[in-house]
Amino acid sequence: MCGVIGLFHAGEEDVFPDAVNGLFQMQHRGQDACGIALADGRIVRHHKGIGHVREVFPSRPLPDFSGFVATGHVRYPTQGDNRVRNTQPHVVSTLRGTNLALSSNGDLTNYHTVRARLEEKGVDFLGTNDAELILKFIAWEHLEGGCSLLEAIRRMQREVRGAYSATLVTGDALYAIRDPWALRPLCFGTSGVLHVVASETPALDIARVDLVDEVGAGEVVHFGREGITRHPHPDVASVRHGSPVPAHCIFEHVYFSRPDSIAFGERVYDVRRRIGAWLARHEDEAIDVVVPVPDSSNAIALGYAHESGVPFEFGLIRNHYVGRTFIHPDQARRDDGVKQKFNPLRSVFKGRRVALVDDSIVRGTTLRKLTRMVRAAGAAEVHLRIGSPVTRHSCFYGVDTPDAEALIGSRMDEAGICAHLTADSLRYISVEGLREAAAGDGHFCMACFTGEYPEPVREQKASK
Amino acid sequence: MCGVIGLFHAGEEDVFPDAVNGLFQMQHRGQDACGIALADGRIVRHHKGIGHVREVFPSRPLPDFSGFVATGHVRYPTQGDNRVRNTQPHVVSTLRGTNLALSSNGDLTNYHTVRARLEEKGVDFLGTNDAELILKFIAWEHLEGGCSLLEAIRRMQREVRGAYSATLVTGDALYAIRDPWALRPLCFGTSGVLHVVASETPALDIARVDLVDEVGAGEVVHFGREGITRHPHPDVASVRHGSPVPAHCIFEHVYFSRPDSIAFGERVYDVRRRIGAWLARHEDEAIDVVVPVPDSSNAIALGYAHESGVPFEFGLIRNHYVGRTFIHPDQARRDDGVKQKFNPLRSVFKGRRVALVDDSIVRGTTLRKLTRMVRAAGAAEVHLRIGSPVTRHSCFYGVDTPDAEALIGSRMDEAGICAHLTADSLRYISVEGLREAAAGDGHFCMACFTGEYPEPVREQKASK
Amino acid sequence: MCGVIGLFHAGEEDVFPDAVNGLFQMQHRGQDACGIALADGRIVRHHKGIGHVREVFPSRPLPDFSGFVATGHVRYPTQGDNRVRNTQPHVVSTLRGTNLALSSNGDLTNYHTVRARLEEKGVDFLGTNDAELILKFIAWEHLEGGCSLLEAIRRMQREVRGAYSATLVTGDALYAIRDPWALRPLCFGTSGVLHVVASETPALDIARVDLVDEVGAGEVVHFGREGITRHPHPDVASVRHGSPVPAHCIFEHVYFSRPDSIAFGERVYDVRRRIGAWLARHEDEAIDVVVPVPDSSNAIALGYAHESGVPFEFGLIRNHYVGRTFIHPDQARRDDGVKQKFNPLRSVFKGRRVALVDDSIVRGTTLRKLTRMVRAAGAAEVHLRIGSPVTRHSCFYGVDTPDAEALIGSRMDEAGICAHLTADSLRYISVEGLREAAAGDGHFCMACFTGEYPEPVREQKASK
Amino acid sequence: MCGVIGLFHAGEEDVFPDAVNGLFQMQHRGQDACGIALADGRIVRHHKGIGHVREVFPSRPLPDFSGFVATGHVRYPTQGDNRVRNTQPHVVSTLRGTNLALSSNGDLTNYHTVRARLEEKGVDFLGTNDAELILKFIAWEHLEGGCSLLEAIRRMQREVRGAYSATLVTGDALYAIRDPWALRPLCFGTSGVLHVVASETPALDIARVDLVDEVGAGEVVHFGREGITRHPHPDVASVRHGSPVPAHCIFEHVYFSRPDSIAFGERVYDVRRRIGAWLARHEDEAIDVVVPVPDSSNAIALGYAHESGVPFEFGLIRNHYVGRTFIHPDQARRDDGVKQKFNPLRSVFKGRRVALVDDSIVRGTTLRKLTRMVRAAGAAEVHLRIGSPVTRHSCFYGVDTPDAEALIGSRMDEAGICAHLTADSLRYISVEGLREAAAGDGHFCMACFTGEYPEPVREQKASK
Repeated sequence: MCGVIGLFHAGEEDVFPDAVNGLFQMQHRGQDACGIALADGRIVRHHKGIGHVREVFPSRPLPDFSGFVATGHVRYPTQGDNRVRNTQPHVVSTLRGTNLALSSNGDLTNYHTVRARLEEKGVDFLGTNDAELILKFIAWEHLEGGCSLLEAIRRMQREVRGAYSATLVTGDALYAIRDPWALRPLCFGTSGVLHVVASETPALDIARVDLVDEVGAGEVVHFGREGITRHPHPDVASVRHGSPVPAHCIFEHVYFSRPDSIAFGERVYDVRRRIGAWLARHEDEAIDVVVPVPDSSNAIALGYAHESGVPFEFGLIRNHYVGRTFIHPDQARRDDGVKQKFNPLRSVFKGRRVALVDDSIVRGTTLRKLTRMVRAAGAAEVHLRIGSPVTRHSCFYGVDTPDAEALIGSRMDEAGICAHLTADSLRYISVEGLREAAAGDGHFCMACFTGEYPEPVREQKASK
Repeated sequence: MCGVIGLFHAGEEDVFPDAVNGLFQMQHRGQDACGIALADGRIVRHHKGIGHVREVFPSRPLPDFSGFVATGHVRYPTQGDNRVRNTQPHVVSTLRGTNLALSSNGDLTNYHTVRARLEEKGVDFLGTNDAELILKFIAWEHLEGGCSLLEAIRRMQREVRGAYSATLVTGDALYAIRDPWALRPLCFGTSGVLHVVASETPALDIARVDLVDEVGAGEVVHFGREGITRHPHPDVASVRHGSPVPAHCIFEHVYFSRPDSIAFGERVYDVRRRIGAWLARHEDEAIDVVVPVPDSSNAIALGYAHESGVPFEFGLIRNHYVGRTFIHPDQARRDDGVKQKFNPLRSVFKGRRVALVDDSIVRGTTLRKLTRMVRAAGAAEVHLRIGSPVTRHSCFYGVDTPDAEALIGSRMDEAGICAHLTADSLRYISVEGLREAAAGDGHFCMACFTGEYPEPVREQKASK
Repeated sequence: MCGVIGLFHAGEEDVFPDAVNGLFQMQHRGQDACGIALADGRIVRHHKGIGHVREVFPSRPLPDFSGFVATGHVRYPTQGDNRVRNTQPHVVSTLRGTNLALSSNGDLTNYHTVRARLEEKGVDFLGTNDAELILKFIAWEHLEGGCSLLEAIRRMQREVRGAYSATLVTGDALYAIRDPWALRPLCFGTSGVLHVVASETPALDIARVDLVDEVGAGEVVHFGREGITRHPHPDVASVRHGSPVPAHCIFEHVYFSRPDSIAFGERVYDVRRRIGAWLARHEDEAIDVVVPVPDSSNAIALGYAHESGVPFEFGLIRNHYVGRTFIHPDQARRDDGVKQKFNPLRSVFKGRRVALVDDSIVRGTTLRKLTRMVRAAGAAEVHLRIGSPVTRHSCFYGVDTPDAEALIGSRMDEAGICAHLTADSLRYISVEGLREAAAGDGHFCMACFTGEYPEPVREQKASK
Repeated sequence: MCGVIGLFHAGEEDVFPDAVNGLFQMQHRGQDACGIALADGRIVRHHKGIGHVREVFPSRPLPDFSGFVATGHVRYPTQGDNRVRNTQPHVVSTLRGTNLALSSNGDLTNYHTVRARLEEKGVDFLGTNDAELILKFIAWEHLEGGCSLLEAIRRMQREVRGAYSATLVTGDALYAIRDPWALRPLCFGTSGVLHVVASETPALDIARVDLVDEVGAGEVVHFGREGITRHPHPDVASVRHGSPVPAHCIFEHVYFSRPDSIAFGERVYDVRRRIGAWLARHEDEAIDVVVPVPDSSNAIALGYAHESGVPFEFGLIRNHYVGRTFIHPDQARRDDGVKQKFNPLRSVFKGRRVALVDDSIVRGTTLRKLTRMVRAAGAAEVHLRIGSPVTRHSCFYGVDTPDAEALIGSRMDEAGICAHLTADSLRYISVEGLREAAAGDGHFCMACFTGEYPEPVREQKASK
């Protein structure tokens, strides 16, 4: 996960409030830490910390912290640990007044190889974070190699493998950079004077900026005093080992993105409704009521209801004073508080055959508890309907799935999972069904379901 | 608002965790401050502070703070200011080992009269809070007057007017006390060994305690080593000036209570669905889609959809990292953040005739912004459908409505309000429609709509 | 240790700043916790906390916290633990507007006996602190027994044994109370309108108040709207089991009190100079230079120098950014930082026969390190000169001496101690020498040296 | 003021605890902020903050913060403001693994000129601090100019004017650097494996390191894996515009340094005693008692006493729970608390002709209050004896003297000052007397007394 933002104000007004507001709209992508770097035309300053956006950035302006160019980040810790030195944006300072700051979303797959090569040249690393590697690769090529920043980015794109949606700030310009597979989302928009790059479109909405486009696969977009300049990758297929097509992370549609986001060209809410409709069309049980596991499955369940005519009900009431369960990185805290978070409505469940809709099954811990909770609330039958195929493989691109052995889908077949979850039936959307629902250009990374990664993954996940 | 809890463990196990969890389930009733008093069979200790439950009570046990009897409170400041000395539970200590602690939800209407009478007798007050008055009245009669606690409570009920749902802790017993009108909710349940009294049933659910009943109008329920003893009021009509019926606050169903609560004998979710159904049955416009202002109107909009067949959609996406708007007591913070909180889904609204459903209109500020937001998102028509009648009168019993002049419903007629909110049409449920939907015993306080208060209110709201 | 203060302003001006300043002047008596209770003519409010005066009481006024009567306390924890519930002042609240707050310095010797008697009557205790016992005894007699406060205090003085120098606040008056032995210091003064009671006179000085007198042994002084009324004990000898004389703690002169304090009628600085003079007169070694262990022994060493003509030098430089070593209650922290705290001046010690002067030897740990440090700094001989006799017995009246077995003076003879401390010679002042130096009325408790306690101590120190 | 430290452990053990302890021993040189940078053989990490050493560096180790090379700083803010970005050590990071961190004590006199020159070359500055300028000058010459660090330092010494005693850390080495005038102190020592550089020798003492020598005027000392290498300046007179002699700040002896420090080759305590002896030899009044303003004048007064035979007394008792008055940078806080800090001993002053000894008179505010305080305590006559000549001129090298017009010595003659301070007589040591007392090489900067600055000061103090 994680979320990135980039801002450039052509009138050179302070973008700090917009940066904070934009990060706040992407708080669901990472609650662990956040940071912002601002450039005032010359100097890049940064402020970052552990905690929510509201905690790290109070509502009042910070002393000595303003600028018209910004990069910002909210962190969900998939990589490295929770130390401040792995907090983004990362910064490179030199004596020459060339300061660079970069935030990135996504995991690299050849971090160790590239880092070793850079270390041989004399580059030092403060932490173990992918974004630091990307930044220092670019900085090295630009500052030591003497090439332009754009060319430095191109060199990085040739060497570094994996997912990165990044924003890079110099003293007076902003670059948006996306990996050749376009794995993680990155879009940009403008109000005419204020340009905003972000992982999700609500960060544009809050700034009253109109969406222009996604940053293309391998594309670099430059925002400077001369305006917006798009630099499509000159030969993106070659840096994809010949693949003609990108590979967008399907999990953005399934779970990560807000429903009001437009991801990979499609409104997430609409995609989720189509997922629900697919599940409804493939229903083979008699269902009295369809109930989502709120909030990520609300639109899926609603799509099911609209397609099937089965009544939709809010059968599980969620206490929003707790955070999103999935957001906590360790198992212990993930289990914690299912009861505190969800309370079942007996009048909805009593005597009914329930389709309980969830977006995905990772470990199955929460869904097992919810199935029992729903049955204890009087449901006659509990049929689990899942808005994604069986999750069987680890992700190497930034989704915090556990190692394969912790995935219930890699250890059991569907019947086994159904029994383990104590459900009456269990149905997943098919890979093709999900692809249809996701629409867009149709080019998705579905490796977590299929094991077919966009490119060979040589380094072990655990090795970092 | 505010929420109260009371706990008694017959096995004399520590109820601190259950008290914290229960208050957490009622956090929506008050985010301003909270507190718990615990009795260990002899001594009553308390801990309270400004902030959310999670802030005041960390997840680890507190040193020297345990007990098998508890009273707890979450505060929404309608009364007095935000000083700690007005934080509940209030405590009375004496030398004799008789310690009393009390939490109450609801506003009194003759506070000044009763306080003056007590002060004449020599009773001192630390703050200006209703609960302190109730506690000290009872304590005076019991400790100085020499009567039993039950008799002291009865005397209090004869003198003190207004709303109070209270829990009172002695060294080794718990009392649940409710005003003769049963204005604010108060229920109790038991697991056999653990007895819980609470403003809302989810506080019972989290403790795995079965609901037994509401505390009756004017009733006192005693929980002690000898078990549960109910003391219905011997002559409740007389302390209601002859009124044979109670007057439950209808706003609990409309807005305050969680949908999974059972209030005044009815599941709130079901009541809200019936409100929506009533609105659908009285629809006089052609509607393409029904959209709630989340989350308080979700069930109303769903009831509308089920009754009418008009599709329900989540057209406004809510950022849950902000709190509930209404919860902040001052106008400035109430306005703040409508854009941060709600983002419209263009694909839902585009070209459609929208029924936008909200639970009530107080000042109209938020709804005016939302109406414009929905129209800007492409809606062809915006029809506002409100789950309560026109709010025209102040509440004197604990609902934080502003003075009448700030209520848009007291300043304009419906056409004027509709124009002010820039809507195409505006419909409210009728008083009778709401009464039917609320069901239960049918005896509600609807003074905020009708101006008919259960009893004459002599003191001015502003005078405290 | 511990320090108490009491204030009364006849013009009914706020005494909060003077209370804070006064406690700050007695910070050396206790750095563990502090608190103040204020009465405004009617209500007593209190504020207390763990930490230094500057931490618990910020320099700005506290909201809702002012009054013209005050009692205050700085705590050095000899009794009970470091929990807030043992923090002073203690408070008794009742419904009748009779609020009492009390701070006390000194330890009781029959705490358990008296507590048990009170508990039988129904009095409850929140903690295990002597001052709570004193307060509740008085409160019980006054509130339940119906006698006057003065008479209640007299009854307390008849039953409670041990040391107490206390200030008691009612809604509109202040009482100063001292045990019949006058073990711990307590004096009072007035500016005409502002009356101040304190453990040490610098608390009067900072308030620009002139010292009037000590509170006499067993005396009660009342400060009210009618002025200052002294109530000498009507029969103090009887509550001293016939002893005609008091027993002032000699350690106030030796170590506790500031040199600028007037304790038991004598300026502490002058007493210490006389102690040093005695040591000089009894010198039997050839000494080149006299050096104090700063700061508590400065005046002793100076007195030695003036008497003997041996040059005084500041041979050990103290880093004042650390606190006073003795002030930390546990052995671990007491050892900690001798090197951080003291640095020897080689040019002072080099080749010289040094008289190293300290006020007392308790465990000997620090002095052993200092002796080695001085020798390592070049001293030819190190002769230890101690401003008090051999400390052999525990104190039961509030001095935080360890159990007798931890006292080096109870385990070894003087030759053994001298060898253990690696000194060339070791001399103590004699009991009689100290008594002469202390002057005043000559009636001191010297039990820590002689084992002769003013009255039999029946309860074990460890038993609390 | 300010204090610097540098550490290098040849056994590559962590020097963090020694760095903290050493800074703590120099806390009196700056209480405003502090920081440490550590190198582990490759990477330089830093940690700094606003506050005392104990606050910024807790007693437990910090995660990810260790190393065998260190530079550290305590700040007294003479330069720039109190923002974190002006906190030391300053750091330069580059991609090449060349990280530099530097701490410096002393003010530059051509900051703006040098900064402008560097900015023209493209060097950027984060703040306005002298140490950042020194570091970036060196870094630029080394990193961009390609010369060795030693040569880069030599270039800096040719261009930069003013006072600097600095420690510079690379990934695996430590440099000690001193300006050609040797204005501020800087010494070094070694235990064989642990080498320590510091502003004052107690920072060596606490690390059990033996003093080797001062860092010479213009000298650079290198501490690396190959040992200690001294690089005396090849032509120090030329960078001093031909001056054959250095100019040590005499105020270190008068006030700044701890008495146990060896500064400019002399023990400060001994210098101060000699100052006092000079004052005694030049006494022209009949004096009964000599009393220091503690603690900075203790040794001066003692020297006076030993020379004259007049008895020394601690007549003003200092409350050490307040910090050193002079340390607070603004006038308001400097005045604050004379009464809280000093309490006079009436028995010392009563009827006596007092020599009140202070180290210097800057504004005269405190001394005027003390003179009155001493007279009010009964002194028959108050004769002020000052351990330095009349302070008439501003310092441009790091002593926080106010602008000349705020110096009482620049506005009045001695008679006028004496009258203003309400003293009976006032005597200063002469410039020559002070020089004799200070001994050492005899080459001191006494510009604050004489106006003769070591080199012309072209920039205005107020201009920064």
